Amino acid sequence: MQQQETDLYPSRQGKKETITHRHDPVVYPYHKPELESTLSPEQIARYINDGFLVLPDYMSDWVEALQYKIGQLKQIMSGREELITEPDSNALRTIFNPIEHNQLVKNFFSHPRILNIARRLLGSEVYAMQSRVNIKPPFTGRSFPWHSDFETWHVEDGMPRMRAVTAWIMLTDNHEKNGPLYVIPGSHKQFVCCEGSTKDNNFATSLKKQMLGVPLQHSMKELMGNKEITSVTGKAGTVVFHECNIMHGSPDNISADPRSILMCVYNSMENIAQKPFSDLQPRPHYLNSRHPAPLHPLND
Amino acid sequence: MQQQETDLYPSRQGKKETITHRHDPVVYPYHKPELESTLSPEQIARYINDGFLVLPDYMSDWVEALQYKIGQLKQIMSGREELITEPDSNALRTIFNPIEHNQLVKNFFSHPRILNIARRLLGSEVYAMQSRVNIKPPFTGRSFPWHSDFETWHVEDGMPRMRAVTAWIMLTDNHEKNGPLYVIPGSHKQFVCCEGSTKDNNFATSLKKQMLGVPLQHSMKELMGNKEITSVTGKAGTVVFHECNIMHGSPDNISADPRSILMCVYNSMENIAQKPFSDLQPRPHYLNSRHPAPLHPLND
Repeated sequence: MQQQETDLYPSRQGKKETITHRHDPVVYPYHKPELESTLSPEQIARYINDGFLVLPDYMSDWVEALQYKIGQLKQIMSGREELITEPDSNALRTIFNPIEHNQLVKNFFSHPRILNIARRLLGSEVYAMQSRVNIKPPFTGRSFPWHSDFETWHVEDGMPRMRAVTAWIMLTDNHEKNGPLYVIPGSHKQFVCCEGSTKDNNFATSLKKQMLGVPLQHSMKELMGNKEITSVTGKAGTVVFHECNIMHGSPDNISADPRSILMCVYNSMENIAQKPFSDLQPRPHYLNSRHPAPLHPLND
Repeated sequence: MQQQETDLYPSRQGKKETITHRHDPVVYPYHKPELESTLSPEQIARYINDGFLVLPDYMSDWVEALQYKIGQLKQIMSGREELITEPDSNALRTIFNPIEHNQLVKNFFSHPRILNIARRLLGSEVYAMQSRVNIKPPFTGRSFPWHSDFETWHVEDGMPRMRAVTAWIMLTDNHEKNGPLYVIPGSHKQFVCCEGSTKDNNFATSLKKQMLGVPLQHSMKELMGNKEITSVTGKAGTVVFHECNIMHGSPDNISADPRSILMCVYNSMENIAQKPFSDLQPRPHYLNSRHPAPLHPLND
């Protein structure tokens, strides 16, 4: 593991909570000419401004096969620590690392229609740092408080800079009432240096219910300002890219409809996670790959 | 206390959960000619069909004074059992019985613009069976699962029939993201005879987190059918009437805005709560008035 570099985003270091500016670009200059036209200038501008991009019905023809494979994965991976249940029931909430356990999932995230957007945004080759299936079961799927993924990945995994993007596909319709992703557009331009300090093995509980890295109310109020909380909704097959530092959360699923999504965190090969920016031991590999290898575009 | 009459709506009697039809009208014939025009035929039809009625900006001029008086009540009633906190914090969630502790609140619910709608819908004189302030604080205000109020009032308080309506005013804007009331339109026409059996003093925990009287998932699916979960939203000053048996719940407040409402349950003088339809002792008077007296319309 490399030497830790200067900590540009200190958090959970026992200090008073503050909000600072982002020190990194949101979109990096493309490194291959053929990537230029991957997104339109309007799409790039929207991602820079909002911190996320929704592509309705973008890969709908993959949904059925992915659903089928994930159903199999639930059986095959049963009993493994990569499977996380809801905090107050035994309902399955998350399957980590499906990309390592299923070739179709890997093919999906290697498809040029999705992979090249990640390469375009991050201006470099990318690797799959984390992948997961989030299942929000009907009625019992619980909420998740406001947080920035980058804050966790920085403090607990050692991701140095903001140069990662999460891509995900809706495997069921995501609507207002089944616990969709809530984002605060524009919040990725600031960074909340959170209070508290991280205990070892925080991840073992934080995957069910995050406590640390959740900004205080006054920070959230400041960050929200006059921005509007936005629900990210769409039909199954819709693909979303959201920036690693966007403030997001999600409400309970109080409907009769499951809300399932499949996601992959693409991290830049120039931003490989190193020693955590804390005294913690690195988290398990299924939360943060320690064998980064660039993904290559793979047509159907 | 009177002899218990036949139980038309048995629930929590240790039997398998079933869904039955409602045995009572939704709107009763008006008992005074001057009440005929209180609501339009369209409004009556909507209430019969949906089980609730929203009157936007109906009593906006009351909001400021009510907010002020409720602020005082928090101080005056501090430490009393009528004040309920959130399940996982000390934030104030509910103040019960404000109508007994403040004249302005009583005047508000005696105003003909609101009281006469209750009298019109229930076809009789009415009394204030329960009143409360619900405060859903920013970020920490927690969700409430699906339930019918009537089910609780019947089993735990002895309300014999479905002949009550809850009227409430929004004291802050109620919007999609600050934990608004969710209802299932039309669900008041059926009754879920819930599983389980009620322990004594269930109310002491159920006011924070309801467990009994919450229908099973398959009942909720059946009840929802192809109905759409509807958020009841509006500006401060909006008044809502919802039928005692409508299935409702509410999500977390994950926004920076408090969601406060003031409500009163009007019960018909011909439907006075008696012995609980269970082996329970009656709940405290601040949850269910044991001194029913008809409210008289009182102009400003």
